[in-house]
Amino acid sequence: MMFRVTFLGTGGSIPQTNRAPSAVAVEREGDLMLFDCGEGTQRQMMRCGTGFTVDDIFITHKHGDHLLGLPGLTQTWTFQGRDEPVRIYCPESVADHVRGCVALAGHRPAYDVDVKPVGDGTVVRRDGYDVVAFETDHGRVDSVGYAVVEDERKGRFDRERAEELGVPPGPMFSTLHNGEAVELEDGTVVEPEQVVGEPRPGRKFVYTGDTRPTDRTVEMARDASLLVHDGMFGDDKKDRAVETGHSTAREAAGVAREADAELLALTHVSSRYSDDVSPLKAASLDEFADSFVASDGDEVVVEYPEKERGTRRV
Amino acid sequence: MMFRVTFLGTGGSIPQTNRAPSAVAVEREGDLMLFDCGEGTQRQMMRCGTGFTVDDIFITHKHGDHLLGLPGLTQTWTFQGRDEPVRIYCPESVADHVRGCVALAGHRPAYDVDVKPVGDGTVVRRDGYDVVAFETDHGRVDSVGYAVVEDERKGRFDRERAEELGVPPGPMFSTLHNGEAVELEDGTVVEPEQVVGEPRPGRKFVYTGDTRPTDRTVEMARDASLLVHDGMFGDDKKDRAVETGHSTAREAAGVAREADAELLALTHVSSRYSDDVSPLKAASLDEFADSFVASDGDEVVVEYPEKERGTRRV
Repeated sequence: MMFRVTFLGTGGSIPQTNRAPSAVAVEREGDLMLFDCGEGTQRQMMRCGTGFTVDDIFITHKHGDHLLGLPGLTQTWTFQGRDEPVRIYCPESVADHVRGCVALAGHRPAYDVDVKPVGDGTVVRRDGYDVVAFETDHGRVDSVGYAVVEDERKGRFDRERAEELGVPPGPMFSTLHNGEAVELEDGTVVEPEQVVGEPRPGRKFVYTGDTRPTDRTVEMARDASLLVHDGMFGDDKKDRAVETGHSTAREAAGVAREADAELLALTHVSSRYSDDVSPLKAASLDEFADSFVASDGDEVVVEYPEKERGTRRV
Repeated sequence: MMFRVTFLGTGGSIPQTNRAPSAVAVEREGDLMLFDCGEGTQRQMMRCGTGFTVDDIFITHKHGDHLLGLPGLTQTWTFQGRDEPVRIYCPESVADHVRGCVALAGHRPAYDVDVKPVGDGTVVRRDGYDVVAFETDHGRVDSVGYAVVEDERKGRFDRERAEELGVPPGPMFSTLHNGEAVELEDGTVVEPEQVVGEPRPGRKFVYTGDTRPTDRTVEMARDASLLVHDGMFGDDKKDRAVETGHSTAREAAGVAREADAELLALTHVSSRYSDDVSPLKAASLDEFADSFVASDGDEVVVEYPEKERGTRRV
């Protein structure tokens, strides 16, 4: 089941020639979500070929480099004849701001735009997964991150063991795998626990938006398949990171290490490092080997934990 | 004296991978102006190297593809520490909309943003030129175009004739050229009309924004050095042009021919022709030889009418 993450904009507060402002597209089976929507996101979507059938947009905070793509995108949907509603999630204090963005397009949308306030712990239920908002720390503004958490999957069915117990291959296998006991012809009852392993975790994608490193992020990113974390500055600009409510690449890598994430992608790259990200890369790798500095257009395929090839940049 | 026009965005209502929405930068000596400011204009400015010292922005109408770059640009100026005011001109009914755009950046600008309503005939006086607003016809919305009209230059000084009349080379030449009579040693009075030609026109740049062809545009574009006109559609989509308040390439070329413009640039190219503008090009050239379909990043150097190399795409 496809779970693909596309980095549409990896730049910092000021856009750069090679980095658009913040936006990440996540495609999971038929669902397409956006996390943040900086200026120019719609053109980046065209360039990266993500398609436009977005149902849910998750905004982390009110700064322009995270939401100024909303008016243009909502206008384009009108031109495209969209009639499906779109849901936009954001911190409660940002809701009016988001409504203002939509109103700016100059064409009234021909579809419903449903702005939904979230706070720490808000769960958005979707078919097969939750999107969970969590508080982050971006200085003086209200900010949240989001985790896409797939439902647990059934445990593995031990076919060999089932056959040993005398279960005939066929419908009884499914019954057991679905958690119900079966009675064999000789009256023996086989319980699912005898042939089905522990439930297995699904995949998890975590997007912090702009933030200092926090314990809450470590908690939410526990065993994440992919953590996309603010990694705006190098070690040389730690003071600046503290002052502006961002993280250094090393700090982001520390969060990934503590959370035991599978893969870390650094984003919101300051224009200082736009052409040469090696200071960010070196600091990050020093703390956490499975990390990279994301570029516009990068894609990551998120895999189940037990898959051999693993979650990876493609 | 430098007069350079840079096409930052030549796309139609929906942005395209190779065409940003509407924006044109005009640099005249030390002055940098923007005409329209679609989403992503600031990144296009970076790519094209126009610099960011814009004092005046001229907006033609309220549609998002002409002004949604304002919030991001005003935010970036805040990050850059701008303290000079910026003036934004627009039709009166669009002024609140523009103020709303600026308010959306999420950071209050640290400099003054002065929104100035214009109507047909409004003249904005600048050092050495006027910017004149004129009414256009973009269907149901209020819309204007703008003409940058340089002051007339002094007539040519006929040095040979002055010497024939006995005027000694030196300060008297300047006095005459500046329009004052001089008295020679023998008491003869020489009038400036005897040695100075007719005042010569300056350069003229005309930007229509989105519009049907109009008589008013022909009048304003009379002898323009460069006319940038809506040329959204090919002949095959004339109905659509009428319906949506745009022009076909042929219609735009007709305006340039009637106005006797020196050079015509077509812009606001529909996504239909994004990859192959030949239908627009052919229709335009059929009516008016000195025309081209602008691409993002194109530059035109505007020259004085008598210059041999002329106004040209570089």
